[in-house]
Amino acid sequence: MPSLQINEVAPRDGLQIEAEFVPTADKIGLIDALSATGLARIEATSFVSPKAIPQLRDAAEVVTAIQRRPGVGITVLVPNVKGAERALACHVDEVNLVMSASESHGLANLRMTPTQSLEQFAAIVETVRAPPQGREVFINASLSTTFGCPFEGEVPEARVLDLVERQLALGVQGVSLCDTTGMANPAQVRRLCEAVLARFPETPFTLHFHNTRGMGLANALAAWQAGITRFDASLGGLGGCPYAPGATGNVCSEDLVHMFEAMGVSTGVDLDALLKVSATLPGLIGHDTPGQVAKAGKADRRYPMPAR
Amino acid sequence: MPSLQINEVAPRDGLQIEAEFVPTADKIGLIDALSATGLARIEATSFVSPKAIPQLRDAAEVVTAIQRRPGVGITVLVPNVKGAERALACHVDEVNLVMSASESHGLANLRMTPTQSLEQFAAIVETVRAPPQGREVFINASLSTTFGCPFEGEVPEARVLDLVERQLALGVQGVSLCDTTGMANPAQVRRLCEAVLARFPETPFTLHFHNTRGMGLANALAAWQAGITRFDASLGGLGGCPYAPGATGNVCSEDLVHMFEAMGVSTGVDLDALLKVSATLPGLIGHDTPGQVAKAGKADRRYPMPAR
Repeated sequence: MPSLQINEVAPRDGLQIEAEFVPTADKIGLIDALSATGLARIEATSFVSPKAIPQLRDAAEVVTAIQRRPGVGITVLVPNVKGAERALACHVDEVNLVMSASESHGLANLRMTPTQSLEQFAAIVETVRAPPQGREVFINASLSTTFGCPFEGEVPEARVLDLVERQLALGVQGVSLCDTTGMANPAQVRRLCEAVLARFPETPFTLHFHNTRGMGLANALAAWQAGITRFDASLGGLGGCPYAPGATGNVCSEDLVHMFEAMGVSTGVDLDALLKVSATLPGLIGHDTPGQVAKAGKADRRYPMPAR
Repeated sequence: MPSLQINEVAPRDGLQIEAEFVPTADKIGLIDALSATGLARIEATSFVSPKAIPQLRDAAEVVTAIQRRPGVGITVLVPNVKGAERALACHVDEVNLVMSASESHGLANLRMTPTQSLEQFAAIVETVRAPPQGREVFINASLSTTFGCPFEGEVPEARVLDLVERQLALGVQGVSLCDTTGMANPAQVRRLCEAVLARFPETPFTLHFHNTRGMGLANALAAWQAGITRFDASLGGLGGCPYAPGATGNVCSEDLVHMFEAMGVSTGVDLDALLKVSATLPGLIGHDTPGQVAKAGKADRRYPMPAR
């Protein structure tokens, strides 16, 4: 069993903000290629309204058509009960609920306050757990703006702990702490991760970082030092933050895998295979990606001596 | 006194690989603006042969004309005795000698093996220390490829420790451990920094990272955790590695300052002032730079709520 579990979010978090719709067959090909690299989980799509995010309007088609590999969990974002019902019909392994830790980001992004989101979480959990599903679907919740809100600023640690507790009380099984706009720093990450692990020792926490201010890998390192073993990451560093134009997006999967494997921390991921999939991204999305290892090669790359 | 001392290397390490010559007056303006931000040291130029690096052919003019501020050390790279003599004539505060930890990189970059470099170090130290200089000039040595060589691969820790010991025995006072092509990972950085600090507790070590594989700030974090308080960094992330085309360069000064200040670790640098200087770079060099904070703004930047 690898030391880390990587949840690949490019098919959802990355593709949802691309200007162009990526054809369904290409999405399926991408996810199938990712499944073969040893990733623990793939967030395949979002069962959101096609009007809200037309880029993912083919959610059901994608999830129905992808190959299902043992050991690779397929998770999908579900924004509401209807989304959960559509996701369950496609036999996903996991649903990922989403809410904001800050009032203003919740209103801007989801049109819901945290309290309203928690009410909806209750309804979604009820739907997922209702017979006749039978099948055990893991319920994860993502907490946006955990490390700060681009509108209102600081998010107190006490609020984060309280919201996590309320999520778990509703039947949520795992929680993703999301640095949605790349505001976290390593000292803050270490403090908060230690606090949640001390208070909720049985809960699997996933850390979700963006590289907006260049601290993505430093924050992942700090989280790992605190005892975190699950990370969201996005192939090529796809994704991004609408409030920081020009900045890079999610922490890059292959850069994250590269760092931890170089440190001797196993991820279960075949980095060469992952880099090959990353190399297909520009062809799918029509532009370059911010990932660094894909450009520079791995640290163990050797060069010929220059001619004298 | 700030917790960290930042040595700004863009005027030397950054500008030396720019395709276009930056006019002397612009270099002077850049260094003067940097001096006013609270940086501890500035590597202003290199007294290398103008034929080898024509971009820095104005070394003496630059160092003679810049404003000298109390508390801001002016250091320059000196490749040989002649360079040291030219630097001393300009009344620099510090000279930075350079050698490679690996044989093949030394031959490729300096046309010298490590042993030959050490012989030359002895001659440079003798020159710097010879009367009638009188004035105390600090002698620093940079050890390239400390964390790995792009030609021969792994550089054993024992070799690094041995080379540092031999440098110090020659009269070198401070050592910069350089991840010249961005091969270091945080576990390796922590191990090596702990080893050098344990063995040479009186010596000021500076860590020099590149962001080639995205690990620049993670490596700086690991070095700081090991007890390192001095870092090289380059405004805008200028600089680079000729063996990793497309990859970013040195760790970016404003991103490094931003991370540590956000963590509560004082750098002595006025980040807003530094960002203003960084914003002048595209006008000086004619292209965008890889720094992230300059694009995204600081983590405490606030945005208006989007219109509903």
